[in-house]
Amino acid sequence: MSSVDQQLDELRTEIKSELPSDISVSEVKYEGPELVVYTRDPKEFAQQGDLIRQLASKLRKRITVRPDPDVLAEPRDAREQILSVIPDDAGVSDLDFHKDTGEVVIEAEKPGMVIGRHGSTLREITKEVGWTPEVVRTPPIESSTVSNVRNFLKQERDERRDVLERVGRQIHREEMSDEEYVRITTLGCCREVGRAAFVLSTPETRILIDCGDKPGAEGEVPYLQVPEALGAGASNLDAVVLTHAHLDHSALLPLLFKYGYDGPIYTTEPTRDLMGLLQLDYLDVAAKEGRTPPYDSEMVREAIKHTIPLEYGDVTDIAPDVKLTLHNAGHILGSAVSHFHIGDGLYNVAFSGDIHYDDTRLFNGAVNDFPRVETLVLESTYGGRNDYQTDQDDAEQNLKRVIKETYEKGGKVLIPAFAVGRSQEMMLVLEEAMRSGDIPEMPVHLDGMIWEATAIHTTYPEYLRDELRDRIFHDDENPFLADQFNHIDGGEEERQQVADDGPCIILSTSGMVTGGPIMSWLRHLGSDADSTLTFVGYQAQGTLGRRIQNGWDEIPIDDDDTGRQSTLSLNMDVETVEGFSGHADRQGLENFVKTMNPRPEKVLCVHGDESSTQDLSSALYHDYNMRTFAPKNLETFRFV
Amino acid sequence: MSSVDQQLDELRTEIKSELPSDISVSEVKYEGPELVVYTRDPKEFAQQGDLIRQLASKLRKRITVRPDPDVLAEPRDAREQILSVIPDDAGVSDLDFHKDTGEVVIEAEKPGMVIGRHGSTLREITKEVGWTPEVVRTPPIESSTVSNVRNFLKQERDERRDVLERVGRQIHREEMSDEEYVRITTLGCCREVGRAAFVLSTPETRILIDCGDKPGAEGEVPYLQVPEALGAGASNLDAVVLTHAHLDHSALLPLLFKYGYDGPIYTTEPTRDLMGLLQLDYLDVAAKEGRTPPYDSEMVREAIKHTIPLEYGDVTDIAPDVKLTLHNAGHILGSAVSHFHIGDGLYNVAFSGDIHYDDTRLFNGAVNDFPRVETLVLESTYGGRNDYQTDQDDAEQNLKRVIKETYEKGGKVLIPAFAVGRSQEMMLVLEEAMRSGDIPEMPVHLDGMIWEATAIHTTYPEYLRDELRDRIFHDDENPFLADQFNHIDGGEEERQQVADDGPCIILSTSGMVTGGPIMSWLRHLGSDADSTLTFVGYQAQGTLGRRIQNGWDEIPIDDDDTGRQSTLSLNMDVETVEGFSGHADRQGLENFVKTMNPRPEKVLCVHGDESSTQDLSSALYHDYNMRTFAPKNLETFRFV
Repeated sequence: MSSVDQQLDELRTEIKSELPSDISVSEVKYEGPELVVYTRDPKEFAQQGDLIRQLASKLRKRITVRPDPDVLAEPRDAREQILSVIPDDAGVSDLDFHKDTGEVVIEAEKPGMVIGRHGSTLREITKEVGWTPEVVRTPPIESSTVSNVRNFLKQERDERRDVLERVGRQIHREEMSDEEYVRITTLGCCREVGRAAFVLSTPETRILIDCGDKPGAEGEVPYLQVPEALGAGASNLDAVVLTHAHLDHSALLPLLFKYGYDGPIYTTEPTRDLMGLLQLDYLDVAAKEGRTPPYDSEMVREAIKHTIPLEYGDVTDIAPDVKLTLHNAGHILGSAVSHFHIGDGLYNVAFSGDIHYDDTRLFNGAVNDFPRVETLVLESTYGGRNDYQTDQDDAEQNLKRVIKETYEKGGKVLIPAFAVGRSQEMMLVLEEAMRSGDIPEMPVHLDGMIWEATAIHTTYPEYLRDELRDRIFHDDENPFLADQFNHIDGGEEERQQVADDGPCIILSTSGMVTGGPIMSWLRHLGSDADSTLTFVGYQAQGTLGRRIQNGWDEIPIDDDDTGRQSTLSLNMDVETVEGFSGHADRQGLENFVKTMNPRPEKVLCVHGDESSTQDLSSALYHDYNMRTFAPKNLETFRFV
Repeated sequence: MSSVDQQLDELRTEIKSELPSDISVSEVKYEGPELVVYTRDPKEFAQQGDLIRQLASKLRKRITVRPDPDVLAEPRDAREQILSVIPDDAGVSDLDFHKDTGEVVIEAEKPGMVIGRHGSTLREITKEVGWTPEVVRTPPIESSTVSNVRNFLKQERDERRDVLERVGRQIHREEMSDEEYVRITTLGCCREVGRAAFVLSTPETRILIDCGDKPGAEGEVPYLQVPEALGAGASNLDAVVLTHAHLDHSALLPLLFKYGYDGPIYTTEPTRDLMGLLQLDYLDVAAKEGRTPPYDSEMVREAIKHTIPLEYGDVTDIAPDVKLTLHNAGHILGSAVSHFHIGDGLYNVAFSGDIHYDDTRLFNGAVNDFPRVETLVLESTYGGRNDYQTDQDDAEQNLKRVIKETYEKGGKVLIPAFAVGRSQEMMLVLEEAMRSGDIPEMPVHLDGMIWEATAIHTTYPEYLRDELRDRIFHDDENPFLADQFNHIDGGEEERQQVADDGPCIILSTSGMVTGGPIMSWLRHLGSDADSTLTFVGYQAQGTLGRRIQNGWDEIPIDDDDTGRQSTLSLNMDVETVEGFSGHADRQGLENFVKTMNPRPEKVLCVHGDESSTQDLSSALYHDYNMRTFAPKNLETFRFV
């Protein structure tokens, strides 16, 4: 008998002894990090409100109880009973019964009302019908990404369960080594921005954290080919953890599956969906630019199939000697500071991913409070000695000034923006400014992937800033549903119409003017001296956005109809409004470390250019007396 | 056509254009790092004294010229002609003709006389018979190791040539990567003594430096199982370099071949022979102690077959982007400071291996003069703040005092000594002391592997200290042949006889009293209060030697006949004479670095316990303002 089977046998005996005699246990198994307990008495289980919580705390495991399929009410009957238990206001939009696991997935506009106070309504459902309910939110704005992901996972349910069982046995395997070490190998994003990738390794376990590309230098990928990355093959990795969906962290995850990786990706649920959206767009852009993408869309689906979503704060076993906890990072939707607890109190490492330390309109500031942390791996994008940014208030004032001035000239404000994150922040600023009368009411047109990304944001309000989340729970206060927002879904014709109309604001991708609908908007508005092109995000070296910022006014542009290149004379005003970054500035990074609880012993400054990482590293050393490093790529640090 | 074949084609054309028209070139190929040129006109080649040197310098390759087999004189005729060219005094003991390569191996007591001034006699031989002569020394003391290795290599000649051709093509392959980095990964001997192993890696190449075990902790082996050691398999290594034969550097080299490694080991010729001797003994000891050795003797033979011997100072291509040069390290016979020149002027790393900085009786002090060195990996065995040793003069005085006092009591001096290195140093001290009358003439008995190790020393006098080398060239001055030295080859009977006789000195293995004939000597002499047990080498924690040093006088010992354990009351005097270490002491290490030319930018202090490496690292940092490190095992440092 394998050690895992023996462990499950023992757990089953222990669970039985903990349960009242009228509750049976028909099977106990692992699915991913969870322990699943099958019972022929789900109703009795549900009656004892706190039983699962007690078991979980006793066994120190995440526990799910499922009914033995034999004892279930027929879906037809169950459906009626369930709907009679849930208040009508919950807005149930779908019920999906899975006979094999006894789960019923309830999609509702107001999941909270399906759950009830402390889960009371859920328990009521089980008491009535035996089925185990699982609740998901009906997106307030229809999102093809969310519905595609959900349909795909429904369709791949059987295979996914196989994956989860395999992963579960892997996580709970016996520890083989009596050695102890904790190491971090840097595979990318050291003394550079982009291609984030790290390996965290112990004698038992090898975990890849992020696997991105380098924007503007698509050939430069993380050093996956060195042996310390994938060892004797991608299957030597135990787990992948993704801090957030941006491509410089996520673009090459699907490639791992092409290389033969077959293990889990741990990340948040919104990151999973955004990652799918951005990776498919990445393939699309590569194809449009005539590059051969390193993998195809099938691999994106593999990545989604292998994703095990975690909620902020859940402590999860991901290997025999590693527990992972994700915490809000404040950077984009679902972004996570990833905390690893290694061994039984041996060592703790936190990877910041990209962070924003202060609260923004969209997100609470990054979490920096942990039970223990010895080493912090810290982003340094704005770690340079002069990287202090305008604060958000001033930034908003500046933006509003530009809009008012343009409006008064009768012009239009064209804002290139990243689909994920900055666009939604802009929407919140604009909605508030119009509602409070700071700027005149006018249409705000959203072009490119912005609408879709916004829909994903509204699907996961739990990941947004507290106040914003509460507003979204009420349709009439959901700022993203405000009347002035218009999704450009009518192509060139609609753009022409907007261009011919009066003053308005246009948010369009790509954020660095490297392609996408923003090019079309430049053709429409570029010659209009009354309109303003307004940059609100970082323009990287080598992008057209940066060149325009630097004063270029003769822009090479493909003619939409003929594909020929022509030159556009840019007569628009060009403005740059700073202070809307999704990254902490130098002060924010220092504050993150200074107020961190507990203060780490060592800090690795990464994800910034050479001078930023070195500036930040030496400042943290001098000001807080920590051991700090500005690693190069391909180094290995040992901590224990 | 492969890039190597193309390269050889071009070289052939270039060589032809450099040679006079009467010299043909029938084939050009690589064998290991050498370029072999076959010609139908070997005699004409030999006539032009400097031609090969000119070619080598023009092509920047090591060049060997061999006759096309068709044009050779018959061995029967050639033998006579060769013997008529070589002076009788050379003492030719064997001629061995290899038709396939046109080489004749000449074994002679005085190789210098076969070579002639600037190689004139060798050229004369080729002019006469066409064959290419290769000269080896007839060991002045018969060595079964040397003759076994030579016979084995003769027998494996064909297979070895296949290995060399494969390695040659590998070395001269086209560089594939346009990236640049130089990294060192520590696999052992960091913050500890033993299990030396490092990987030096570039985008092209992965080189393992040393692969030892840990004396007294045989289970602790280098971290070969981490992916950065062997990558996807041992065949991912391009080369292995061995700094010297001691088991803490060499014991696990044969294991690589069991793992599938099939590439070269670069080291000196004496290290190759000593390594074979010590590895076979390692297997023997393991078997005697009931441990299962990790490999068998077949793998030792594989290691020898794959060894490409280099001489001190030879700059040798060992990979498309790496040149290796070995330099005298002064530690034991054949020990080498290994200097790596990487890329075309990109970076230089020197691994000290174990060093002795000052001259000893046996060896010149370690070389610390290089064209360039940016990083030095430095042993730190005696790097601690108090690790200053008695100087050699005082050490010798102390030893002589102990011997005289014991002699005057009519007792015997029993010296546990390592077979390789310390024993020969002792022999030189004793021979000199008796010759000069400092101590009385008396027999010096050599037991265990000491005699054999001494024979190997006399086979390679070029590797000994200048004065000693010159003396060995004259039989009547060879100190190792002095009359008082007696090889104990008559077992227990002879030992009993020695024990019954008068005053004498006994050098016996093992050096730390952990087994071997020293145990038998303790049974014979342990109860004799007139005799002295004299330690001249380091006694590691946990060894019987250390315990006796610390005052134990009741010694558990196996009875030789019955195998039962009994207790021996030790009545001998116990003395420790310090100052005979093969390692530089703290002062020597500092002097090595201080006088190093050029001074390196970075120093990694390894091969010493935690405090020694840290003491040395911080001292070098403070005194010489270098970047210094005391790495842990399993770290990776990147230098470019």
